[in-house]
Amino acid sequence: MAVNFHIPSPENIHAVPGIEIGIASAGIKKAGNRDLTVFKFTPGTTVAGVFTRNRFRAAPVQICESRLQCDQDIRALLVNTGNANAGTGSDGMDRALRTCQALAAELGIDQTQVLPFSTGVILEPLPDDKIIAALPTAVADLNAQNWLPAASSIMTTDTVPKISSKQIELNGRTITITGISKGAGMIRPNMATMLGFIGTDVEIECNLLKQLATEVTERSFNRITIDGDTSTNDSFVIAATGQSGIEVTKNSPHYQVFVDALTEIALDIAKKIIRDAEGATKFITIQVESAKTQDEALKVAYSIAHSPLVKTAFFASDPNLGRILAAIGYADIPDLDTSNIHLWLGDVLVASDGGRHVDYIEENGNRVMQESEILVRIALNRGNVQETVYTCDFSYDYVKINAEYRT
Amino acid sequence: MAVNFHIPSPENIHAVPGIEIGIASAGIKKAGNRDLTVFKFTPGTTVAGVFTRNRFRAAPVQICESRLQCDQDIRALLVNTGNANAGTGSDGMDRALRTCQALAAELGIDQTQVLPFSTGVILEPLPDDKIIAALPTAVADLNAQNWLPAASSIMTTDTVPKISSKQIELNGRTITITGISKGAGMIRPNMATMLGFIGTDVEIECNLLKQLATEVTERSFNRITIDGDTSTNDSFVIAATGQSGIEVTKNSPHYQVFVDALTEIALDIAKKIIRDAEGATKFITIQVESAKTQDEALKVAYSIAHSPLVKTAFFASDPNLGRILAAIGYADIPDLDTSNIHLWLGDVLVASDGGRHVDYIEENGNRVMQESEILVRIALNRGNVQETVYTCDFSYDYVKINAEYRT
Repeated sequence: MAVNFHIPSPENIHAVPGIEIGIASAGIKKAGNRDLTVFKFTPGTTVAGVFTRNRFRAAPVQICESRLQCDQDIRALLVNTGNANAGTGSDGMDRALRTCQALAAELGIDQTQVLPFSTGVILEPLPDDKIIAALPTAVADLNAQNWLPAASSIMTTDTVPKISSKQIELNGRTITITGISKGAGMIRPNMATMLGFIGTDVEIECNLLKQLATEVTERSFNRITIDGDTSTNDSFVIAATGQSGIEVTKNSPHYQVFVDALTEIALDIAKKIIRDAEGATKFITIQVESAKTQDEALKVAYSIAHSPLVKTAFFASDPNLGRILAAIGYADIPDLDTSNIHLWLGDVLVASDGGRHVDYIEENGNRVMQESEILVRIALNRGNVQETVYTCDFSYDYVKINAEYRT
Repeated sequence: MAVNFHIPSPENIHAVPGIEIGIASAGIKKAGNRDLTVFKFTPGTTVAGVFTRNRFRAAPVQICESRLQCDQDIRALLVNTGNANAGTGSDGMDRALRTCQALAAELGIDQTQVLPFSTGVILEPLPDDKIIAALPTAVADLNAQNWLPAASSIMTTDTVPKISSKQIELNGRTITITGISKGAGMIRPNMATMLGFIGTDVEIECNLLKQLATEVTERSFNRITIDGDTSTNDSFVIAATGQSGIEVTKNSPHYQVFVDALTEIALDIAKKIIRDAEGATKFITIQVESAKTQDEALKVAYSIAHSPLVKTAFFASDPNLGRILAAIGYADIPDLDTSNIHLWLGDVLVASDGGRHVDYIEENGNRVMQESEILVRIALNRGNVQETVYTCDFSYDYVKINAEYRT
């Protein structure tokens, strides 16, 4: 059950000039489910990506990374769900390459111009023959309006399609940014089983786009966590088609406006992953203030976000705030002086100077705990750095979904 | 439901000459439940302890640490359950000190000779008045045979008392080692909500006992994990009364025999915590072999042991082994070459050279997964270090127990 989830109405989902999307059912997921998605980019599109830091890198991730050089002219993405093609060795690599070759032949491009993406069960052979057989259907379906169907067709245990889209004025012209994502478990910093694709029609130089992809990831997908599991397949790709005729450079007067809009879309589709997290009933924002370094702020935030005890207390709407203090205490900050720490639950000051706040009454904690969106604020009072991380609670359904995933 | 749990029969639980234990109901837990335990040591007993590394250190932990100097003559332990006296600031310290004072007065010793221990809910004021009122009853109950009742009276969410006892021959005389522990959640390296007490009647110099306490912890309590949550109150204490007349020094011919027996008792009561872990249905041993360093072996082991996806797969008896590979991959070992890794589930070689083993069939994985005790073996093939960590699965009941703990 997704938490306060918003799917934009069709008129607010903007096609991106220069990008067409085609979808098909390859029969990898249950029969009839759409599980194959093709993106086709107009010539001259620049593409950049960020990939999982898991040392087990799925075959498609390895192929993407080697192909995403700025001298290469990426023209298509090939996305399958139902099978991650991970832990599959050189055979997995061969299968991924065969699917790229087949799509390249369909589109009349070189196979090195195709980037493959896979998500689903790990350690099973990719059914490349099924994918190849379904490619003509996907290519015949290519269409600029297919963003919402694409958001659905890349889902695995997701319950809702994740999409965000906006148009802004740059230099007197309208430009478009539209993004989709998938992921509902195995989500943590450095991305996890998530795929994210953002298209825009600005023109942007490849090295700058690479840098932006990294920056934007750091402020969106790398700030969400469900269960601390980082997958072998995480991928986030931005494609800029240039079709609006507006160029974005570091010196453009509208540079920051564009970056902010891009970050907004990325953060929105990242947060939607948390809102649709497996079994989630609450959306939790953890804000760590007055830390000495970014590293320690994130350590504290993730220590809370990953604590099964904290997460089950949120599920129970139980203001068992000692569990949050305990998680701060084991966040591995050796010189942390706990007697300076303040903790707020929503607008309620729960703990001050490291202990229960004198005015805190459980009734107030209970009130905040009933809400479906909860802000946890921690002041470490030892510096000026602030970081925010988004997570969810831990429910019976999380266990159920993950226990039964393959059965 | 504890996994393959063993409570020794009464004739196999050996009293430790020089240690008496008294128990009472202070009314901190539900009325009538025994929640107060007093240990009284004969004069000349040496005592050493190891405490949580959580930066939030409960008041009793702070008191214990300051009192456990070798020039102090510890004569009693005062243990309450139902309330952890953590996150309670200077008021919590005052309350803990008052309970120590009251016990000292009852026993005719100095209050600095008492060590306090608390476990239970965090962030609530310790009901020191109730504890003080019940102390005379506990003192009147002092008795050398009370080890099993003590193991029960220190329980919180535990379902079974955890006790282990053995007698060995040293230098032709029988010596005794008996230990109890509590803890069923919030367990991880560096101990977590666990209390452990071991008594023995050997004579042992205080500094050597301190060193042994640390070494033994490293091979027992610091190798178990349930949920990765380290509590504010973890404490493990060894008391050596000297009543057997046998001295243990580093140069004793029987030194290693004693250390092995002590470690065996500590590891047994540590493993019992996992066997009784909240909601556990499986006992899982994770053995990482041929690592380069101890640090990386433990990183890999804990990465697997803490993965909610791995733990729910074990609960479901689903050989979803890709999740284990993924957890190895995100264990934060930057130069890990995954193409050298082998993975066994029980006696089944699942993955070799980083991918699915050519002979692996799911039927074999399924067979092992049905068992209630499962060995996961990983060979990193990059060094000579081996480490073993013990954990359990993650069930509906874990969520239920932790969601409802205070309600």
